[in-house]
Amino acid sequence: MNNIDEIVAQLKFDDKGLLTAVAQDHKTGEILMLAHMNEESFRKTIESGEAVYWSRSRKKIWHKGEESGNVQKIKELLVDCDGDAVVMKIEQVGDAACHTGNRSCFFRRLENGTLVDVGVKIFDPDKVYKKS
Amino acid sequence: MNNIDEIVAQLKFDDKGLLTAVAQDHKTGEILMLAHMNEESFRKTIESGEAVYWSRSRKKIWHKGEESGNVQKIKELLVDCDGDAVVMKIEQVGDAACHTGNRSCFFRRLENGTLVDVGVKIFDPDKVYKKS
Repeated sequence: MNNIDEIVAQLKFDDKGLLTAVAQDHKTGEILMLAHMNEESFRKTIESGEAVYWSRSRKKIWHKGEESGNVQKIKELLVDCDGDAVVMKIEQVGDAACHTGNRSCFFRRLENGTLVDVGVKIFDPDKVYKKS
Repeated sequence: MNNIDEIVAQLKFDDKGLLTAVAQDHKTGEILMLAHMNEESFRKTIESGEAVYWSRSRKKIWHKGEESGNVQKIKELLVDCDGDAVVMKIEQVGDAACHTGNRSCFFRRLENGTLVDVGVKIFDPDKVYKKS
């Protein structure tokens, strides 16, 4: 636990108490998603070995995959020069990181002045997420 | 120009008017840096074909490499599902993206509870940046 405190002391959370976190496929290098972590979620990430974010929209701790089962197992964690961003090299369980069912959240590519859907669809979100 | 307007209309700048931008080596997939863009810098990125950020610390448009010469040539640009983050696959001129002289800003790796410097040092920042 002392170790986590020492690492947290080297991080620079922003004025909302957040870091930026990038999840990258540990094998292919594909960037799968970008989200945020507060201190509690960073600690839970380290402790659990799985990506735990802070959901800015739902304003709560978000253990990625808690609903879909698509957890992200941390293989490597890197911190940037100014300590306000982390890169996690992960194994994406279920192959899809995006709530749209795409493998990556970055599924729109700029081509000739328009955004083109180049996503690899892994699941149908209507079937994975319960409707309220 | 109309095309850029249509793309900008699909982006979701945050309450400070910023997107998060990730620069990734277009060949190796290595994540080199993470920074931010306001609308003007996003437009300049598209127009110039090189990464132009908004420097939050200096509060100004920051054409990456303007001082060091280490510009980032855009090979591919991807937008995420909610339009608040972009990934740029780039060619990093000069091989180093980080102001510390490291190839990547993400040069500290979590190992056994401590952050270990695993950076590949490309240049000596004292020699590249003029001292004021």
